[in-house]
Amino acid sequence: MQLPNPFDKACPTRQLLDRIGDQWTVLIVLTLAEGPMRFTEIGKRVDGISQKMLTQTLRSLVRDGMLKRTAYAVIPPRVDYELTGLGRELVVPLSVLEKWATTHMGQVQEARDVFDQGQAPVNA
Amino acid sequence: MQLPNPFDKACPTRQLLDRIGDQWTVLIVLTLAEGPMRFTEIGKRVDGISQKMLTQTLRSLVRDGMLKRTAYAVIPPRVDYELTGLGRELVVPLSVLEKWATTHMGQVQEARDVFDQGQAPVNA
Repeated sequence: MQLPNPFDKACPTRQLLDRIGDQWTVLIVLTLAEGPMRFTEIGKRVDGISQKMLTQTLRSLVRDGMLKRTAYAVIPPRVDYELTGLGRELVVPLSVLEKWATTHMGQVQEARDVFDQGQAPVNA
Repeated sequence: MQLPNPFDKACPTRQLLDRIGDQWTVLIVLTLAEGPMRFTEIGKRVDGISQKMLTQTLRSLVRDGMLKRTAYAVIPPRVDYELTGLGRELVVPLSVLEKWATTHMGQVQEARDVFDQGQAPVNA
């Protein structure tokens, strides 16, 4: 049996890797780390996500076993999403990624400014 | 001063977050974690990446200060890439992400099979 290896283009882990690192996945999983939430509430927390992208990403995360969807037979309809055990295992890795971005944004911006001035970036 | 926050659509950290979680970024940074490498060698390691995508991603990582590009005045031309200090700080977070994908691929595939059979996924 071949080991999963995202360096191999035919391995399904490559697409999974891209999926879990997607900005919407990161923001939705981190939002739901706080607890179950309604569709509309998630949309509010993830500022600027379109209804279509929210629907698609949630569906994809449910299909991948990371979220559980619960629909309540009430009027107006209410649908809740929560992390599964598998989804909860993503919280720490994705928090680290988000933390990296917020912590290093200044350094990245400085590097861009230098690059855009046509100079070689100063490397640590 | 406002704190960097990728939940805000106007914050540049959102785009940075998406950038660092991109499959090509992950695979290139992890490849270069082994040491400086030539353009062609990186292309071989990241199976299936197009020349255009490799060029774009490398340029973007250089601009963001994560890679250093060194061109040697030889024939044929030789260009090496290596991680900067900033880029090296990404190695651990991205390794964790890659490890997550390879470790959990089986569970994700099982969840997909259940979902595609029209049943509710079994959640842990």
